[in-house]
Amino acid sequence: MLPKNRVLTPGPTALLPEAQIAQAEAAMHHRTDAFIELFRTVRGGLKQLFKTDRDVITFASSGSGALEACVANYIEEGDKVICVNGGKFGERWVKMNKAYGANVIEIVVEHGRAVTVEAVQKALDENKDCRAVFVQGSESSTGTVHPAREIAALVAKRDNCLMCVDAITWIGAHEVQTDAWNLDLVVCGSQKAMAMPPGLAFLSVSAKAEKMLGERKGNKRFYFDIARELKNQAKDQTAFTPAISLIAAAAASLKWILDAGVDNLVRNAGELASMSRAFAGALGLELLGDAPSDSVTAVRTPGDMDSSKVIKGLKTQFGAIIANGQDDLKGKIFRLAHLGNYDYVDTMGLLAALEVVLADAGLKFESGAGLKAAQAEYLRLTK
Amino acid sequence: MLPKNRVLTPGPTALLPEAQIAQAEAAMHHRTDAFIELFRTVRGGLKQLFKTDRDVITFASSGSGALEACVANYIEEGDKVICVNGGKFGERWVKMNKAYGANVIEIVVEHGRAVTVEAVQKALDENKDCRAVFVQGSESSTGTVHPAREIAALVAKRDNCLMCVDAITWIGAHEVQTDAWNLDLVVCGSQKAMAMPPGLAFLSVSAKAEKMLGERKGNKRFYFDIARELKNQAKDQTAFTPAISLIAAAAASLKWILDAGVDNLVRNAGELASMSRAFAGALGLELLGDAPSDSVTAVRTPGDMDSSKVIKGLKTQFGAIIANGQDDLKGKIFRLAHLGNYDYVDTMGLLAALEVVLADAGLKFESGAGLKAAQAEYLRLTK
Repeated sequence: MLPKNRVLTPGPTALLPEAQIAQAEAAMHHRTDAFIELFRTVRGGLKQLFKTDRDVITFASSGSGALEACVANYIEEGDKVICVNGGKFGERWVKMNKAYGANVIEIVVEHGRAVTVEAVQKALDENKDCRAVFVQGSESSTGTVHPAREIAALVAKRDNCLMCVDAITWIGAHEVQTDAWNLDLVVCGSQKAMAMPPGLAFLSVSAKAEKMLGERKGNKRFYFDIARELKNQAKDQTAFTPAISLIAAAAASLKWILDAGVDNLVRNAGELASMSRAFAGALGLELLGDAPSDSVTAVRTPGDMDSSKVIKGLKTQFGAIIANGQDDLKGKIFRLAHLGNYDYVDTMGLLAALEVVLADAGLKFESGAGLKAAQAEYLRLTK
Repeated sequence: MLPKNRVLTPGPTALLPEAQIAQAEAAMHHRTDAFIELFRTVRGGLKQLFKTDRDVITFASSGSGALEACVANYIEEGDKVICVNGGKFGERWVKMNKAYGANVIEIVVEHGRAVTVEAVQKALDENKDCRAVFVQGSESSTGTVHPAREIAALVAKRDNCLMCVDAITWIGAHEVQTDAWNLDLVVCGSQKAMAMPPGLAFLSVSAKAEKMLGERKGNKRFYFDIARELKNQAKDQTAFTPAISLIAAAAASLKWILDAGVDNLVRNAGELASMSRAFAGALGLELLGDAPSDSVTAVRTPGDMDSSKVIKGLKTQFGAIIANGQDDLKGKIFRLAHLGNYDYVDTMGLLAALEVVLADAGLKFESGAGLKAAQAEYLRLTK
């Protein structure tokens, strides 16, 4: 058979064709009415995606650029911060804060577990002068959701403490209400639920966060200056040359999301995740953890089966690229993506390919058992 | 008549169709052999464009991101630096260095004039502890070239002083020899001579600059960390998710440049610039300055003629977007672009449109005189 090459990873996710075409078509200068109109549409769409009335600013950078903006604009040498570290991206919050000289209160969480609200409450109680709490909404390295909404409720009670959420694989896969839940700084990237290429980072800034902008002037920064971008982007312009073709892709992507409905995009990811969990259960495979994200399902390979072999088999036999574990988890898990432009057909096709590859790798199960369970879950959820 | 919309600005420049299509086509994950092969090709092409055997690193950012990398990785509070400020981008070097607390020795140059080598020599002599000299190869806001090669020869004599060149509109329009001329840090952006969309910044790092990386650890930084990217990119990977579709566009763009030959791309810009200067001369129009760049020709509008009207006329009547002056120069000049994917036909067509608009604006000249001069210059240069 002739396999088609498919990206089925949690980021970059499978590309929306309209976004691919929009970036090719975009041929405009950025200091023109045409760009202003385009960027205004994108800004409006981002507000709906983030569920905020506040501005969502766009940086030409990877998602990590906007993560750094959260640190660089607020945290100085010696400032106390709480970081939830339950995986590779939690670790990134820690590293960034340490790079900026923060006094990091690190809550280390076992890979695959969610941080408890109590642990954060305790850290907050013990550190009244804590300036920010950094957490992932969804930690994609382990496929885990943290209780960011509940943590935000604690942080909201403190005047000088910010709730900073890496929502890169959270938005579009889980319900996120930026304003209603008092999320002060919410970071998103273009290559996840938006199903477009990487290269743009988005950041919403609450009134509380905007007010606190002036308090830390010591850090050196230029490109990731939140105050400058808030000022420029309120006029539908960016301080530096924007990544025009990617902004055009974002407009196409947001049109797709808003036409479908943000809540329906979230429901779609949730249903695909639920099908994937049912599949794993039917094959006797364990999930990595007990707080699974709907953006990505992390499945353990059993015993001494190397997940790299499963992933390689999928690629060579079926052209499907899925994600391995990162760092310590490499070879121990594989990750199935649900956020963005994935549907029932994609998922059932991938699961069917997985059955073949897992059987080849020596897993014992009745052929079709995983597919049957996934389909039953689909019918249960949608009928 | 039905005008076609054309971007004819010095950045973003007119897009190479192959680059537009390449970005639409690129659908790959970045932790794959396919991306590694693509990025290796781009890295090799950049070395040829920069004329360096050293690594040229790529950031997902505007050009300003790589400018900031030059400051953030080398300059700390109180460090002495020399900045040549002859326009908007020279001013950006000053602002960035001041944002990082540098003690800035600013050489202010009249808009349209090149800095003299003597002025830089004097500043270096008076500031033996100067850590870096920051200059534009081509200051695109005024269409001026600075003698960066000659300045680099002075800086090369000092062990602990770096030559940092904003080459964003210099490379591809003028001869640039990164290694042979001892240019330590050379910054380029994707949307200029490479004729592709904005969103990538490139930075070459000399052996001297790499050696000096360890000397300043005080600055807080994460995303624009040169040492981390040198390490990662040597393995054809980036530390953070790369802007994959733009990397694919860069591969297409570099293929076009290398097929044509870097020196021929430079010659092309030079000839178009020379034609444009002949056009201006024949119409009695003055250039902004006496050291005109080959990337962009800045032409003064005479007397009280507002250049904004000329630019607006071009756009409404002929669909052609050209650049106004920026800041203080707005309304006083218009700028004709030559770097990147522009040719004889583009340029003669634009100049013909300019004749119509300038005549409408009240300029007195014999119709066709500018075109005749431009064509004569073309023939003189190429026959």
